[in-house]
Amino acid sequence: MKIIGIIGGMGPAATIDLYKKMVDQTPAEKDQDHIHVIIDSYPQIEDRTGYILHGGINPAARLIESAKRLESAGADALIMPCNTAHYFAKDIESAVKIPLIHIVRCSAEAIKNKYPETKKIGLIATTGTIKAGVYGNILKEYGFETIDLPEKIENNIMDCIYKGVKAGKTEEYSILFQQCVDEITDLGADLLIEGCTEIPLLMPYVKTKLPAIDATYELASAAVKFALDK
Amino acid sequence: MKIIGIIGGMGPAATIDLYKKMVDQTPAEKDQDHIHVIIDSYPQIEDRTGYILHGGINPAARLIESAKRLESAGADALIMPCNTAHYFAKDIESAVKIPLIHIVRCSAEAIKNKYPETKKIGLIATTGTIKAGVYGNILKEYGFETIDLPEKIENNIMDCIYKGVKAGKTEEYSILFQQCVDEITDLGADLLIEGCTEIPLLMPYVKTKLPAIDATYELASAAVKFALDK
Repeated sequence: MKIIGIIGGMGPAATIDLYKKMVDQTPAEKDQDHIHVIIDSYPQIEDRTGYILHGGINPAARLIESAKRLESAGADALIMPCNTAHYFAKDIESAVKIPLIHIVRCSAEAIKNKYPETKKIGLIATTGTIKAGVYGNILKEYGFETIDLPEKIENNIMDCIYKGVKAGKTEEYSILFQQCVDEITDLGADLLIEGCTEIPLLMPYVKTKLPAIDATYELASAAVKFALDK
Repeated sequence: MKIIGIIGGMGPAATIDLYKKMVDQTPAEKDQDHIHVIIDSYPQIEDRTGYILHGGINPAARLIESAKRLESAGADALIMPCNTAHYFAKDIESAVKIPLIHIVRCSAEAIKNKYPETKKIGLIATTGTIKAGVYGNILKEYGFETIDLPEKIENNIMDCIYKGVKAGKTEEYSILFQQCVDEITDLGADLLIEGCTEIPLLMPYVKTKLPAIDATYELASAAVKFALDK
């Protein structure tokens, strides 16, 4: 059984959500059947979206520091419960010898397998993830189109993430989030990607007719498969 | 801000519960306000109760391995979301230079502060924790008496922990757990200690008139205090 290292703390709630989704997907009848996971919950990693949009301290240094810490501790592969942090994926990959299981590739594979008819995708993510093309470029490789969201919706999604989930006020922001989901649906999306690890924490509060891909769930699934693969 | 190391995976659900209780008790408005926590979720650590009751491989070696891994990774103090594992507390403490914040002492302090009138305690724990005196000896120091539980109740508690929570069947075992709580109440307890880290996961399903000390919560509280202490 291989050891999974989690570069976490971006934020802590999303880290818990990812690890819980790994535990839930592991076939286990007793503690010892579970995967050995080392979690470096390091919330001091600088805000990724802030850096991409406005500059400042590059979070890559702390991301690499965390990746190395996990590699030294024995991790065989890395995962990151933060979509925006994948903007720095190449920096991390070139700093360590172990692979990074990439959240966007896991999500694209899941869409291809589960909803192959998908054409237009509503990507619910931070402005940093969208502007940096973290999803767009990979989804294009798979033949999917990403809908351009009006700035107002993007700003509202950012409020749901930062003023809502990351500030411990998930439920309070669920009405605004429902509005975002409805507007994205009206723009013609035929599938939603929960492309920020805080978004799955908001989803239980909203109603939608669209299928939704939980990027965190797909990443957890891939990590469990990697760890248990003989 | 100091770094907390968690010797986890005993079991994974209890590890999530502890970390979540730390996050919830941290005053934070953004990711960066949270504590740096390194979690070694190492479920391969041998069953503690099994060893105490029946012998076999001593889990101390893996507990020490995990403690050293966390110390090397930079942890300033250790915590363990497993009450029974505290039977091996001295082995761990003598293997590393950083302190272990002790779950039983945290719980005893909490009772002294929150419910100073307490006399008879109903300890809900594994048979390993009870037989090894993990709680009994420390509670006695504080002047509290622990009720001796009949073997049938102890066995039912063990089933709730092992066949219930640890096997992912928490809700299915909640009726049996309610019965255990009622029987302990009838034996004259004036306070319950949730003295196994799987027990807080069962508590939302039961009703009781008694105050209850959640050992995991008290440990989380002490760890957050340690990390933020200037």
